[in-house]
Amino acid sequence: MILRPATTSDEEDIWAIFRAVIATGDTYVFDPAMSRAEALAYWFRPENHVHVAEHDGQIVGTYLLKPNQPALGAHVANAAFMVAASARGLGVGRRMGEHCLAEARRLGFRAMQFNFVVSTNEKAVRLWQQLGFEIVGRLPGAFRHAQRGFVDAYVMFQSLEK
Amino acid sequence: MILRPATTSDEEDIWAIFRAVIATGDTYVFDPAMSRAEALAYWFRPENHVHVAEHDGQIVGTYLLKPNQPALGAHVANAAFMVAASARGLGVGRRMGEHCLAEARRLGFRAMQFNFVVSTNEKAVRLWQQLGFEIVGRLPGAFRHAQRGFVDAYVMFQSLEK
Repeated sequence: MILRPATTSDEEDIWAIFRAVIATGDTYVFDPAMSRAEALAYWFRPENHVHVAEHDGQIVGTYLLKPNQPALGAHVANAAFMVAASARGLGVGRRMGEHCLAEARRLGFRAMQFNFVVSTNEKAVRLWQQLGFEIVGRLPGAFRHAQRGFVDAYVMFQSLEK
Repeated sequence: MILRPATTSDEEDIWAIFRAVIATGDTYVFDPAMSRAEALAYWFRPENHVHVAEHDGQIVGTYLLKPNQPALGAHVANAAFMVAASARGLGVGRRMGEHCLAEARRLGFRAMQFNFVVSTNEKAVRLWQQLGFEIVGRLPGAFRHAQRGFVDAYVMFQSLEK
């Protein structure tokens, strides 16, 4: 698996992954009917560092890394990850998570924060905990899950300092 | 004290308050050198409900109310408050907080969340607790305070359902 910065020529593959991920309404807050243009504008905002994961010449995942807040909060990174359904079980999420943490350290971020990890997305919660994140907050009923109704979301955090 | 929706004719007064509040670098993450245009664009984003507080014909405070997340998280409100230094002690923050909570209920929000309350801003933390918010998360060192260096920020939350 190769991880590399995304280019505009990856847009079609990224949109295919993005669309499939939000369609299920069980992990991200985005409207499942979000347009291609809105999705790509969100993923490629000027302040975002976007990477893709390639496996056998196919793009199987993408992540973005950015400051979680402006100026006086910009030392804390935020990130988001999406994996192609066809690539589940290959460890794409873990590889991207590790790469993203290294990239955040390289860019000088002091910590990384996830603002909204859906509590019922247990695989993701477990993966982030394995990669060093702690649940530092619980948001009661903050996510309207397509199947389960209102469920909690977690705020997760990890210091990147030695 | 009167609370009413803001109009474009309030921009100058809102900017004067905004500029003074961010100048101290002890409560908001915004760059103290943020421009008027950036500040007003942020405060008057299309999804924001903006109000001002008037006292003796002067604008002494302003708040914004908006969904904290898109679509599947849009039932939780977010809000931000700024009070003119000249009006400290008049209870402007409390009046705006109560008005904002009533407005959020009226608009059908199920809860309200503050993503980033600076822990050293003790007056604000106490006021929000008095108005029913709980600290549901702690973000270690997430705010670079102009005088104190890295200090914690809190995530605060309140259900608006009976």
